[in-house]
Amino acid sequence: MFDELKAQVAEANRRLPALGLVTLTWGNVSGISDDRQAVAIKPSGVSYESLRPEDIVVVDLSGRILEGELRPSTDTPTHLALYRSFPEIGGVCHTHSRFATVFSQLRREIPCFGTTHADHFCGPVPLTRVLSPTEVEEGYEVNTGRIIVERFRVGGLNPLVTPGVLVAGHGPFTWGRSAQEAVENAVALEEVAAIAWHMLVLESDPMTLEGYILQKHHERKHGPAAYYGQQRRAAFGGKNECHS
Amino acid sequence: MFDELKAQVAEANRRLPALGLVTLTWGNVSGISDDRQAVAIKPSGVSYESLRPEDIVVVDLSGRILEGELRPSTDTPTHLALYRSFPEIGGVCHTHSRFATVFSQLRREIPCFGTTHADHFCGPVPLTRVLSPTEVEEGYEVNTGRIIVERFRVGGLNPLVTPGVLVAGHGPFTWGRSAQEAVENAVALEEVAAIAWHMLVLESDPMTLEGYILQKHHERKHGPAAYYGQQRRAAFGGKNECHS
Amino acid sequence: MFDELKAQVAEANRRLPALGLVTLTWGNVSGISDDRQAVAIKPSGVSYESLRPEDIVVVDLSGRILEGELRPSTDTPTHLALYRSFPEIGGVCHTHSRFATVFSQLRREIPCFGTTHADHFCGPVPLTRVLSPTEVEEGYEVNTGRIIVERFRVGGLNPLVTPGVLVAGHGPFTWGRSAQEAVENAVALEEVAAIAWHMLVLESDPMTLEGYILQKHHERKHGPAAYYGQQRRAAFGGKNECHS
Amino acid sequence: MFDELKAQVAEANRRLPALGLVTLTWGNVSGISDDRQAVAIKPSGVSYESLRPEDIVVVDLSGRILEGELRPSTDTPTHLALYRSFPEIGGVCHTHSRFATVFSQLRREIPCFGTTHADHFCGPVPLTRVLSPTEVEEGYEVNTGRIIVERFRVGGLNPLVTPGVLVAGHGPFTWGRSAQEAVENAVALEEVAAIAWHMLVLESDPMTLEGYILQKHHERKHGPAAYYGQQRRAAFGGKNECHS
Repeated sequence: MFDELKAQVAEANRRLPALGLVTLTWGNVSGISDDRQAVAIKPSGVSYESLRPEDIVVVDLSGRILEGELRPSTDTPTHLALYRSFPEIGGVCHTHSRFATVFSQLRREIPCFGTTHADHFCGPVPLTRVLSPTEVEEGYEVNTGRIIVERFRVGGLNPLVTPGVLVAGHGPFTWGRSAQEAVENAVALEEVAAIAWHMLVLESDPMTLEGYILQKHHERKHGPAAYYGQQRRAAFGGKNECHS
Repeated sequence: MFDELKAQVAEANRRLPALGLVTLTWGNVSGISDDRQAVAIKPSGVSYESLRPEDIVVVDLSGRILEGELRPSTDTPTHLALYRSFPEIGGVCHTHSRFATVFSQLRREIPCFGTTHADHFCGPVPLTRVLSPTEVEEGYEVNTGRIIVERFRVGGLNPLVTPGVLVAGHGPFTWGRSAQEAVENAVALEEVAAIAWHMLVLESDPMTLEGYILQKHHERKHGPAAYYGQQRRAAFGGKNECHS
Repeated sequence: MFDELKAQVAEANRRLPALGLVTLTWGNVSGISDDRQAVAIKPSGVSYESLRPEDIVVVDLSGRILEGELRPSTDTPTHLALYRSFPEIGGVCHTHSRFATVFSQLRREIPCFGTTHADHFCGPVPLTRVLSPTEVEEGYEVNTGRIIVERFRVGGLNPLVTPGVLVAGHGPFTWGRSAQEAVENAVALEEVAAIAWHMLVLESDPMTLEGYILQKHHERKHGPAAYYGQQRRAAFGGKNECHS
Repeated sequence: MFDELKAQVAEANRRLPALGLVTLTWGNVSGISDDRQAVAIKPSGVSYESLRPEDIVVVDLSGRILEGELRPSTDTPTHLALYRSFPEIGGVCHTHSRFATVFSQLRREIPCFGTTHADHFCGPVPLTRVLSPTEVEEGYEVNTGRIIVERFRVGGLNPLVTPGVLVAGHGPFTWGRSAQEAVENAVALEEVAAIAWHMLVLESDPMTLEGYILQKHHERKHGPAAYYGQQRRAAFGGKNECHS
């Protein structure tokens, strides 16, 4: 029933090692069906190389298994919390990629220092707060999703304009309109984090990118009059303006 | 007689270069038989690519060769000392992977800064003391094993909850329930060390992970009620609780 | 009509990922015909692996499409500005390679610290100024090309003796007598930037290379009496002397 | 006539890119015949992938071409100076590998911080002085060899106990009993330099390895009673003791 979604999600997960985003089995990608009733996600602790579409687990938005023999990723409740609160997104990617994790564990946002950052994230990559002992005990994974959503609500952030976050003490989550786009944003986040880290080693407070260049770069790729790539990207209805 | 053990150990050694854990022939993996009478280990100075199961040397716990034409790794007495004192372990891996070696040579433990560390090591990765001139002269390799065991005894550490160590001035040793798991812990240690190093470059004393999150992460993977992966991991009989 | 040029440009673009110069689709290479009437360039947002010669877009020096079904790179006006002002060059390469981007975003030139740098760049790798809000609004891409040309004019720099530049807040552009040489100079620039970065981490103001060694190295490869490689490289008519 | 030597030297050069030691064509390996009358070396500016044994150039110790259609590496006079003064060596390798070049350009020796260093270099990796303007003008390449030899003579160093050097402002040269061993020492030097660099970033003056451990490690691999590897390595007649 969910063959195409499962194939897309399997393929998105299998790409993670070649993209240098995962160590061992530290990462997982999911995608949601068009009617938003079914989420396909990587099974827990299974290696990427051997992952076949039939290994992918399908759950509903409450976490009930709809299809699949294996246990879903332990991070499934985090993914589901994101799908429930961010109706614009179609895929979620969680990794522990090195540089994004360094910023997560240092509990620092990543300022926008250049145009590659601006191409993907309008402004700093945000950071969540730390979970409380009670939140960890009562539902570690679902509450991880909730503090991400809280960070976006409090900060007035649009999930498609800022398609990722750093969870304090943990690591990055990214998302996009599809599982594949979630992975691409994980790649972009890791490279942006790497470049920022290398800059911060030489200077503790580098100049951030001029706001008018940030906005120009983001909008030529994602704004209502986008002209990057082969298709109009302004499929978001012109809502994805970057107000840095 | 030891065909399956030798095949496992050959395969575990052959994986080291692709995992980025070794330079030249700087590393070796061993495994012990279920009855703990035979240890299979890499031959000394042989390259990983050409390693066949029949090249693996089998010795008993005193170091006597039981099978094999080649000389065993010069580090064999270290491996044997670990098997004699840590009856829970089934495999040992020694490398000079870059970041773990940096901490070993700086003679620093690796604090637990995040969840990937907590997934594999309950608390800091410990460091041994330096060998004395007499210990080097009387038995460099066996005494390397002894100071590792000493570090765990003095620190009250459980080798399956803390499956690795840094030898001062030298490099890391990791272990696990099998040769394969020893290698996986070497991969985890190297990535954990890399992330910690990158954090310490930006901040000399970063905040460590909250103890309640450390414990949660370790126990969801290794505790009595573990729910990570496809099998119950609590095969250690519930002894592997993480008291950080 | 432009089959050979398109094949060369496709091949030069396809090499970028294997050379470690690009993330996602962050980079593009172009080449100009011998009569300087046609510029072949990568289409926008297309992945490198799948790039075929027939995907390459050909434009004239004003940007009018001469051949090709796809939209050209959004950076095309920058490439064209360089071809119009630098008649010696036959290829242009733009990437966001990590270390060159770090220097671009830190808005620092790269001093000549050693012989590999001297082999490719006679003196520091120059840095442009930042575009003004008006320049961004009126023509971001063409004005990026103009501030590169301005930097070379103001500094009295010869584009073949200094075959690359860092655009402030953005990233590197390199060039050469062909698309392939432009890519080779991008490789050299990235490695030179990496080495310089690693030096600057340990010492804030390292000694630069002695001028007489800089000149010797550059001229044995590019000067009128060059003796590096299998052909006389002094095809530039002896104008490429390095006055450091 | 020199078929076997040329095959060995071609193979040693072809290994450089896979070992991560070279960028573009920045590196070369040579080997000398047993009667020390013929040196086989890489042709200048030729890429490694396409290198065939018949491309290798053979010269005598004065640099006269004995065999080969191509021009030899521009660094040939440096290699020859080393063969003339170091009769123990059979192969020379020159690269601009990243971390060894960082130390060369910073004009710093690499202290012995750990056992992997001690396995290959008995004590610090030495650094040459800078060439004078006259030396550059009168014979840049041959004088590069001469200042290496000078450094070993002045320091009382044994080229087989310390099989490499950093040329100030330039990069590393390594050697060994064969072309292959020269390349292995280049690999070891690069990794040793990388580990040292990472240590120096965190601490400006880390503790060096205890002399008695340094000596133990070097001698178990290279001393008269070596027991590392499958053959007695003490083929140097017991002269290779490490006096750190």
